[in-house]
Amino acid sequence: MIRVGINGYGTVGKRVADAVSAQKDMEVAGVVKTRPTFEAVMAVNNKFPLFSNNKENLQVFADAGLKVEGTIHDLIQDCDIVVDCTPNKTGADNKERIYVPNKIKAIFQGGEKHHLTGTSFSALANYNEALGKDYVRVVSCNTTGLARTLSTINRGVGIRNVRAVMIRRGPDPWDDKNGPVNSIVPDPPTIPSHHGPDVQTVLKGIDIVTTAVKVPTTIMHLHAVNVNLSKESSSEEISGLLAKAPRILMVSGIDGVTSTARVMEYARDIGRKRSDLNEIAVWKESVNVINGNELFYFQAIHQESDIVPENVDCIRAMMGVTPDAMKSIRMTDEALGLKKWW
Amino acid sequence: MIRVGINGYGTVGKRVADAVSAQKDMEVAGVVKTRPTFEAVMAVNNKFPLFSNNKENLQVFADAGLKVEGTIHDLIQDCDIVVDCTPNKTGADNKERIYVPNKIKAIFQGGEKHHLTGTSFSALANYNEALGKDYVRVVSCNTTGLARTLSTINRGVGIRNVRAVMIRRGPDPWDDKNGPVNSIVPDPPTIPSHHGPDVQTVLKGIDIVTTAVKVPTTIMHLHAVNVNLSKESSSEEISGLLAKAPRILMVSGIDGVTSTARVMEYARDIGRKRSDLNEIAVWKESVNVINGNELFYFQAIHQESDIVPENVDCIRAMMGVTPDAMKSIRMTDEALGLKKWW
Repeated sequence: MIRVGINGYGTVGKRVADAVSAQKDMEVAGVVKTRPTFEAVMAVNNKFPLFSNNKENLQVFADAGLKVEGTIHDLIQDCDIVVDCTPNKTGADNKERIYVPNKIKAIFQGGEKHHLTGTSFSALANYNEALGKDYVRVVSCNTTGLARTLSTINRGVGIRNVRAVMIRRGPDPWDDKNGPVNSIVPDPPTIPSHHGPDVQTVLKGIDIVTTAVKVPTTIMHLHAVNVNLSKESSSEEISGLLAKAPRILMVSGIDGVTSTARVMEYARDIGRKRSDLNEIAVWKESVNVINGNELFYFQAIHQESDIVPENVDCIRAMMGVTPDAMKSIRMTDEALGLKKWW
Repeated sequence: MIRVGINGYGTVGKRVADAVSAQKDMEVAGVVKTRPTFEAVMAVNNKFPLFSNNKENLQVFADAGLKVEGTIHDLIQDCDIVVDCTPNKTGADNKERIYVPNKIKAIFQGGEKHHLTGTSFSALANYNEALGKDYVRVVSCNTTGLARTLSTINRGVGIRNVRAVMIRRGPDPWDDKNGPVNSIVPDPPTIPSHHGPDVQTVLKGIDIVTTAVKVPTTIMHLHAVNVNLSKESSSEEISGLLAKAPRILMVSGIDGVTSTARVMEYARDIGRKRSDLNEIAVWKESVNVINGNELFYFQAIHQESDIVPENVDCIRAMMGVTPDAMKSIRMTDEALGLKKWW
């Protein structure tokens, strides 16, 4: 059993903890919180050993009546790997201050820079690069979405270049502070956005330029993707490749899935925990090859959850469980009840 | 004086009426309404002769205490040209039923099909095609936005092809029925959207593919545009061309114009009637030429008003006032107080 510590139990951490505990070959050694929020209570209720991020906060948890097993320093003595799910940029500090001195393997999230680890990860794109590594970064939700469909298309047909526009949700559903409310925000207003270079950390050498805007929704990013293929193909061939690939779900307006809201409604109806959708949704009717080798498609990304199975596979790669990406992906997906592609 | 009848006094009609009455060489002969709404009252207050769309409704206006000069049939005896601003698809019926039998020139809006007139219009793209014509269609707001910047770039540098993603506002600000509220809607989910072929009605033979989504805002469409130029250029050259062109306004996040909401705030602050922005806003820092001849930019389109000056120029072209597009554009823009480009 791989013993996994989860540092940070917010949007990503709580989902990774559930996904890890669903796997046969790993278990949650403990989760680290900074404050006794409802999520800390939930961790205890879920029987995840709760740890404080430092000594000073032990008393805060005690005062709130929450049983804490110790600090993060105690947790890392008792686990094989840490998944760092702390807020953006905190991971870099944690690496230097905690993980390296204590010689513990750690996974970071897409909010950290690529150079923090030198290895970025997306299971379908470059599983093998993480084999046996000590520090790896799982790319962000948008990059994961692009990496999944593009690596599938690249393997099946070949890609000459990619131009993609990312229409990003504003805040997450729980966020009661941020907007926008009635505005489309070029974010950044400069072109290109950072997403292209981020895709290149897992799909080396791919020619990709991305632009991004932010809009007033809380559910799912949407990507308008334009790919020049390296050889002639057809809408049917590309749809077939995507339909057979793991973690990509073909949806259709004809079936009533006409928008990101409807994709999320589907996830609610099939009973996914937290109404998450770990798969990338691609609209069947949007997949169109024109001029022989120019491909277009729309895809939607559930920003809170697509990176969850990636973290699980990343643990397996770093722990050397198997050098076979598809074996790990299948183990993860079966345990999580994802789309059956095997 | 060109006497202009306005059929329909809603979102487009009321703006075209104001723009016509601001010109030195034309006047509003009358406006046609179907119901005695606050807009009908406003027409009377603005001293625009008010006409009913048919005999049956004359009494409805009388009951509401509104002075009506007659029906549309009376109006067309007394004007040189009608601008049809009735709802989508009604124009086709009006043409057959009223304009053709009465031999009166008419302009239609972008909600009608190109084949209704055989001539579509966007002043910077193809002013001369409308010269002396009896029936012309002014293209829609999105197409107008694309036609303005693309015709400018095409004239200045040359275009090999265009790929553009349109992120469309949901409803107009006054619309209290339609959404979306918290969803990104591929609209249509099929690719390409109709905007590309529509641009081709005014920029003949241009290679353009567009995709479109709808988002929960009421103010401005935003376009992410990707152009392959037919020769090498630079960000500076393209920015220079756009900055000097009529009806294109360069904005910048550095000056605080960070989103469509901020573009509209600028329009409010400079005192434009109804807080409209007839110009297309292009973000300076988004204009980027990479690989020598691949251009990217973001532009925002005020959906309610960018087509207004186009209707004015279209009247001049059809009435044969001048064969010089830039002369008409300047007359229109000076009268409306638009960006000074001359």
